[in-house]
Amino acid sequence: MLFRQLFEKNSSTYSYLIADTDTKQAVLIDPVIDETESYIRLLNEFGLTLKVAMDTHTHADHITALGKLRELTGCETYMGQQANSSCANDSFHDGSEVVVGKIVLTALHTPGHTDDSYSFVLNHEGQQYLFTGDTLLIRGTGRTDFQNGSAIDQYNSLFDKLLKFPEETWVYPAHDYKGWMVSTIGEERQHNPRLQVKDVIEYKKIMDNLNLPNPKMMDVAVPANRACGNL
Amino acid sequence: MLFRQLFEKNSSTYSYLIADTDTKQAVLIDPVIDETESYIRLLNEFGLTLKVAMDTHTHADHITALGKLRELTGCETYMGQQANSSCANDSFHDGSEVVVGKIVLTALHTPGHTDDSYSFVLNHEGQQYLFTGDTLLIRGTGRTDFQNGSAIDQYNSLFDKLLKFPEETWVYPAHDYKGWMVSTIGEERQHNPRLQVKDVIEYKKIMDNLNLPNPKMMDVAVPANRACGNL
Repeated sequence: MLFRQLFEKNSSTYSYLIADTDTKQAVLIDPVIDETESYIRLLNEFGLTLKVAMDTHTHADHITALGKLRELTGCETYMGQQANSSCANDSFHDGSEVVVGKIVLTALHTPGHTDDSYSFVLNHEGQQYLFTGDTLLIRGTGRTDFQNGSAIDQYNSLFDKLLKFPEETWVYPAHDYKGWMVSTIGEERQHNPRLQVKDVIEYKKIMDNLNLPNPKMMDVAVPANRACGNL
Repeated sequence: MLFRQLFEKNSSTYSYLIADTDTKQAVLIDPVIDETESYIRLLNEFGLTLKVAMDTHTHADHITALGKLRELTGCETYMGQQANSSCANDSFHDGSEVVVGKIVLTALHTPGHTDDSYSFVLNHEGQQYLFTGDTLLIRGTGRTDFQNGSAIDQYNSLFDKLLKFPEETWVYPAHDYKGWMVSTIGEERQHNPRLQVKDVIEYKKIMDNLNLPNPKMMDVAVPANRACGNL
């Protein structure tokens, strides 16, 4: 397996390139449109064929590269079934398997940040990787105040799904704003301030009182991302 | 072993936290002063004692956290013997071993970007890690036009030292400006445009013609970094 975490500076987004080194087939999770050339360069250098590009959810802070990558590579583009994407080739739902060569990514529906938020589970040589999108961040969680977000749903996604994974599971989120790149379920259980709540009521109270401004790009990014990044 | 790559956005610097999980002793490579709180938080969360903070070279683009970390944690601060640091506790030279619990980092003098540029070699469970500072970057190399830099020395450091490591050796640089986080010696040999030269003369010609502006922070950062970040 080839695995690379990639960073887009303007929106502090992490994207993930995962490839099966035998079949040379690759998948990109949460690619950002401005980095398209960089992805194409990496794919070419590694001699990889991009089979799938997919988003963990409809992003509000950057524009997806799904459409652009499909145009340039002929890859499939996937989003969650709740995304109402007008252009993705296919959608995933809870339990769907995205198979790229010998790589299997299992979709976990983890709504809360948005209603179309998914995480992906990957098992490789005894190590579990969780790609948590904006559901579980490093020492944080994604806001729940737009795009059918719900603090209650997010609490359930976190406590009933993600935190049930073993302590040593890698957590690879869609963003980090402080330059931390990876975490583990054990670390987040112990040190994520939002996960130290006693119940869903306390969690909802925290999330309802964040008073965050709208993402700068939201009005452009959400409709664009429903159309795979085509404005 | 606990290993974390950390990113400082303003100068696109990568710093590295490496710890022995048995003795709970840690080392930080190339820490940035603005991130000091973040390092302290991580050390506390992991229950680690910082034994050593060290720089691969005297940086010109950001201020080191060495002095600040020593003040806050009592750690040792190391720089290369050519750095003429007025404050580091100790200096390393070619072949020095920095030992932190069961972690052993071997210093390789790799001058060229500056005369005090070092790389560090770490062996862990059959995998080699090279921390290459600004000597070998991902698809690039550090400029050689100030601080006693030398394109010829850098060519020798690259071709006679770093590229002699096995293909699968991880390359962890001090910077990447395009959001790529890690590479391998094999990848760099094959795809780094500056390593495709036929000889040292061609390399020197490339480096002599880069015509880069001076780093914005150079006049402040270099003297500050010779004093461990104390202005």
